[in-house]
Amino acid sequence: MSTLLDPKRTVAELKELRALTSDDNGAQRVAFTAHWLTARAWLREKLHGLPVEIAPDAAGNLWTTLRGESERELVIGGHLDSVPNGGWLDGCLNVMAGVEILRRLHAQYHGRPPVTVRLVDWADEEGARFGKSLFGSSACAGTLNMDEARGLKDRDGITLPDALQRAGIDFERVKDGGGELRNAAAYIELHIEQGPVLLDLDLPLGAVLGTFGVERHAITFRGQAAHSGSTPMNRRKDALLAAARMSPEIYGIAERSGLGVCTIGSCTTKPGIVTSVVEECRITLDQRHLDPSALARMLTDARAASERFAKESRVALAWDRLWHIEPRPFHPELIDFCDEAIREIAGVSHRLPSGPLHDAAEVAGAGVPTVMMFVQSLHGISHNKIEDTKEEHLELCVAAFDRLAEKAMAWIAAGGGRRPE
Amino acid sequence: MSTLLDPKRTVAELKELRALTSDDNGAQRVAFTAHWLTARAWLREKLHGLPVEIAPDAAGNLWTTLRGESERELVIGGHLDSVPNGGWLDGCLNVMAGVEILRRLHAQYHGRPPVTVRLVDWADEEGARFGKSLFGSSACAGTLNMDEARGLKDRDGITLPDALQRAGIDFERVKDGGGELRNAAAYIELHIEQGPVLLDLDLPLGAVLGTFGVERHAITFRGQAAHSGSTPMNRRKDALLAAARMSPEIYGIAERSGLGVCTIGSCTTKPGIVTSVVEECRITLDQRHLDPSALARMLTDARAASERFAKESRVALAWDRLWHIEPRPFHPELIDFCDEAIREIAGVSHRLPSGPLHDAAEVAGAGVPTVMMFVQSLHGISHNKIEDTKEEHLELCVAAFDRLAEKAMAWIAAGGGRRPE
Repeated sequence: MSTLLDPKRTVAELKELRALTSDDNGAQRVAFTAHWLTARAWLREKLHGLPVEIAPDAAGNLWTTLRGESERELVIGGHLDSVPNGGWLDGCLNVMAGVEILRRLHAQYHGRPPVTVRLVDWADEEGARFGKSLFGSSACAGTLNMDEARGLKDRDGITLPDALQRAGIDFERVKDGGGELRNAAAYIELHIEQGPVLLDLDLPLGAVLGTFGVERHAITFRGQAAHSGSTPMNRRKDALLAAARMSPEIYGIAERSGLGVCTIGSCTTKPGIVTSVVEECRITLDQRHLDPSALARMLTDARAASERFAKESRVALAWDRLWHIEPRPFHPELIDFCDEAIREIAGVSHRLPSGPLHDAAEVAGAGVPTVMMFVQSLHGISHNKIEDTKEEHLELCVAAFDRLAEKAMAWIAAGGGRRPE
Repeated sequence: MSTLLDPKRTVAELKELRALTSDDNGAQRVAFTAHWLTARAWLREKLHGLPVEIAPDAAGNLWTTLRGESERELVIGGHLDSVPNGGWLDGCLNVMAGVEILRRLHAQYHGRPPVTVRLVDWADEEGARFGKSLFGSSACAGTLNMDEARGLKDRDGITLPDALQRAGIDFERVKDGGGELRNAAAYIELHIEQGPVLLDLDLPLGAVLGTFGVERHAITFRGQAAHSGSTPMNRRKDALLAAARMSPEIYGIAERSGLGVCTIGSCTTKPGIVTSVVEECRITLDQRHLDPSALARMLTDARAASERFAKESRVALAWDRLWHIEPRPFHPELIDFCDEAIREIAGVSHRLPSGPLHDAAEVAGAGVPTVMMFVQSLHGISHNKIEDTKEEHLELCVAAFDRLAEKAMAWIAAGGGRRPE
């Protein structure tokens, strides 16, 4: 381990950030809110003293650049934003490990490493407020569907463009930041696993093969409101009855798919009063798989089930696609570097896919060679205040991720990675 | 039929009220809102020219009094408030039939009928906003649970006391209106059936035996929020999964009960985002039966099912009673008068229980001899803009209800009905 790198400092800084931006219910760094802005101001303080340029792009992603001998870049990504009541590591571990790597590079190369290294803090990775994750990275990668995003609203009816405007971002210009990836030769991202695989194997670190493809839909069942006291059960057109039957059903669909997962994350009812049969019930369905054909089959199965339940309850049915992304395999050479770095630091590595989506998927989709490194999660849980990782594993991951950065830089310096067109 | 009574005028007035207080989605006379206040101002105009006293009580119920030879009173009840997107007849048919009866009595008895007749427009019968129906009548009957009501909030977090204050009503004094029933000898109420029984029998009118008992609960399942992409299905503690299984279950519980009904009217999820397993799911359950022991059995069955589903999904469970009322049988002599009145006007009568709850249940519970008359509902539907009744049936019901009023007045004048203590 380089003596110039101080992984314990990263752990201490993560605790400092937690104290600054969490409450009793967990992290509260929801994108474009006051707590998120506080976290960013704190990040700038941490970078103080390094010879870096810090600037946001048109989508609100914050770029920190340490210029090197070559203009070709290694990009290190993360995100300070969290879900409401989130964990203390998700997204910000990546950013703070990146900060520590910038410090090490500055010390080792006297401010001028062989290639340019950039740390990006992506804006609104979680999509907690508008139901659209990877906002900043998809804007940067050019895949953001502007028409779709323009219409997104939060629970209070505030549109995404209005929320961005309050944060000083012009929605119609968010894709202008696409040029930021022009010189990106490779992209690396560290993350907590957020699942139980490494925990079950008793391994601290893993090299990620790629991210699951995702199909995300809103499913609306429409029946008929009717008085709860006077409407015989067999005369009802109960939208909730049809929607509710989807919940156990998706467990069977996921099981039949092999390694896929399905989640109904929200359910809303109209009129939603105690004295009326439910007229309209809207649920969201999130489905993920690493295999494109298995993902397609899960979607087909869910559609067929919803049609069956709608018919049996005599209610109407509508599906709206909220979002989708293809499975994104990562770059073979970078996966090898990641494995090597892990073995050098921790002795044993393991390769695994990523169920959760990450900004890395957008960068990989934009043609930049990409890899991620996972560190073990305790409880196999995230998006929750009990999300945690052993401190010794956090220190190991910063050290291994730094090794990966060094290998990727050497690869780029030797002509590897993507070249500008 | 008395030539002094004009049932066609009642139908015309109901259409006028609809035009004034509905939109494309139906009636919008939710209690304590601007549309409700509009409806009440309109009612006062309709009473103009009659020698009546009009005054609200401390709970916001509006009392119109036509003084008679005796201080003992026949009370005629209804409610102008509706659910959101409600029908054009629910509640206001009763009020406007009462107005027509007051006109007939004024004309026939030259302003001084044998007994005092009072028309009451109850406040917030529906409970659409705070989940607590029969607000005004329960305050008047003295059964309103003040501690429970004090804590009620609408969707926007506004408390019932705050909403009342905005309507000029002091929550802490709402039970002061209890004296209004002091001289009530009998209470009668007309209502659309809101169900399919009379429609299926092809009969216009029915005499109501009593109202169903109601058990109303909020059921909250609490699991654990977890990332939708990384949490294997068999590791989840999915609160929605447990709650959703209640929806088909209540259909079986209702069927086994004989004539009971069960409704899950709302479902809310937390955090309620597309990328997380549901941590908390709250549903409301409304159960109704005319037989107290069958009602108790339905509740026991629902509790047992919820405990089973919670255990199977490894989530916690909490039940909160929102409200309950015992089955309320109506007064035998008044039921006979109601049957007679119906036979005189329509030839055939039918006796049936009421699944929906009505203010009449509160008045009966306060010891006032009570009966209701039902008129056929088309579609067997209410609490919906398609709620409807044939105009010829509306005219018949006003005529029959007027007969019932006359019989009840004669009964009171002859010493029948409740006497002041």
